[in-house]
Amino acid sequence: MSDATEHHLEHHLEHHLEPHGHLEDNAEAVQAHLKRLRRIEGQVRGIQRMVEEEKYCIDILTQVSAATKALQSLALSLLDDHMAHCVVDAARQGGAEQEQKLKEASEAIARLVRS
Amino acid sequence: MSDATEHHLEHHLEHHLEPHGHLEDNAEAVQAHLKRLRRIEGQVRGIQRMVEEEKYCIDILTQVSAATKALQSLALSLLDDHMAHCVVDAARQGGAEQEQKLKEASEAIARLVRS
Amino acid sequence: MSDATEHHLEHHLEHHLEPHGHLEDNAEAVQAHLKRLRRIEGQVRGIQRMVEEEKYCIDILTQVSAATKALQSLALSLLDDHMAHCVVDAARQGGAEQEQKLKEASEAIARLVRS
Amino acid sequence: MSDATEHHLEHHLEHHLEPHGHLEDNAEAVQAHLKRLRRIEGQVRGIQRMVEEEKYCIDILTQVSAATKALQSLALSLLDDHMAHCVVDAARQGGAEQEQKLKEASEAIARLVRS
Repeated sequence: MSDATEHHLEHHLEHHLEPHGHLEDNAEAVQAHLKRLRRIEGQVRGIQRMVEEEKYCIDILTQVSAATKALQSLALSLLDDHMAHCVVDAARQGGAEQEQKLKEASEAIARLVRS
Repeated sequence: MSDATEHHLEHHLEHHLEPHGHLEDNAEAVQAHLKRLRRIEGQVRGIQRMVEEEKYCIDILTQVSAATKALQSLALSLLDDHMAHCVVDAARQGGAEQEQKLKEASEAIARLVRS
Repeated sequence: MSDATEHHLEHHLEHHLEPHGHLEDNAEAVQAHLKRLRRIEGQVRGIQRMVEEEKYCIDILTQVSAATKALQSLALSLLDDHMAHCVVDAARQGGAEQEQKLKEASEAIARLVRS
Repeated sequence: MSDATEHHLEHHLEHHLEPHGHLEDNAEAVQAHLKRLRRIEGQVRGIQRMVEEEKYCIDILTQVSAATKALQSLALSLLDDHMAHCVVDAARQGGAEQEQKLKEASEAIARLVRS
C-alpha cells in the first residue's frame, strides 16, 4: 500500500506544478466528497436516535436503506474520479503500472457490486 | 405512519406488562443495534479523514464498501427483529393487520435488495 | 430438506381440500413465475447471441444488468408468496416451526441482499 | 449505438492484423463467457423445473440467488475485458473518445452496483 500511496503523493505534486487546474478540480472534488460524507454521518446519527427512541422498525429500515444508497453513490463518484485520473494515467504508461491499476479497480468494483 | 407508531408503542407497553422477558430482550437488542451504529458512525468519520488527507482512492473505496456492508448487516438484523415480533403478531391477528405488515415488510426487503 | 418438502406437500394437499380457492391462487402464481422465468431464459440466450456476435461490451453489460434485475424481482415475488403462506402459517403454529421458518426466511433474505 | 458498434468492429479488425495474439485471446474470452452463459441458462431452466414441481420456496430462492451471483460474476468479467481493451485504448487516444468511454464505463458500473 505504501508504494501506491507514495505514487499518489507524487501524482498530486505533479498536478501541483502543472498549469491545468487539476489541483483546483481536486480540491473541489474533495470538498464535494466531504459534504456528502458529513450528510451520511448525519443520517447514521439520525438512525441512532430512531433506535434509541424505539421508532417503528420499518421507518428505521427506510433510513438505513437511504444511508446505504448514499454510501454507494459516493463510492461510484470516488471510482469515477479514480478512473479519470489514476487509471487513465496508468493506461498511458502501460506495462506493470497499467496492469496493477486495472487489477485494483477491478477488485474495488467487485467489492462494490457484492456489497 | 403515526398509526403504525402508536401501535408500536402499545406493542411495547404490552410487552412491559407480560412476564416473558420480551422487554429485557428488546433493551438488549436496542443496545446491540446502537453499538453497531456507533461503529458505523466511526467508519464514516474515518472515511472523512481519509478524504481530507487525500489518501489513495482505492483504500478509501475499501472502507466505503466495509461501511456499506456493516449498514446492510444492521438492516438484516433489524428486519429479523421486526419479523420475529411485529410480523409474527400480525400473522396471529390475521386480516388487515396481517396484510399491512406483510406489505410493509415486502417493501422494506425490496428496498434492501435494490440498495 | 426432505422434511420441509414433505411439509410443503402436506400444505398443498390441505389447500386442495379447503374451499378457499388457495390452490387456484397458487396455480396462477406458478404460471406467473414460469412466465417470468421463460422471459429471463430468453434474456440469457439473447446475451449469448450478443457475445457470439461480439457485440459492444457495454451493450452486453446493459442486458446482463437487466437479466439480474429480472431475477431479483422474481426472487422478491417468490419471497412474498412464501411469507404470505409458509411464514404466516408457521407464526400461527408458533414454537419450533415458527423459529425454523423465520430462520430460513432470514437467511434467504440475507442471500438476496448480498447477491 | 451504431457508432460504438462500428468502432468496435474496426477495433477487432485492427486486432486481426496485429501480431500480438489479441484475437486468439479474444476468441478464448468469448468461449469462456459463452460457457458461463450456458451454465446460467441451465440454472434458469432448473429453476423453472423447481417452480413447475412446486418445490419448497426457500430451495427455489437459493437457486435464484446462485443464478444472480453467476450473472454478476459474468458482468464483472465482461467489465474487466472492456476496461483492459476499450478503456485503455481510449485513455491513450485521450480527448472526446476517452471522455465517452469513461462515461459509458461509469454508467455500466452504476447499473451493476444498483442491480
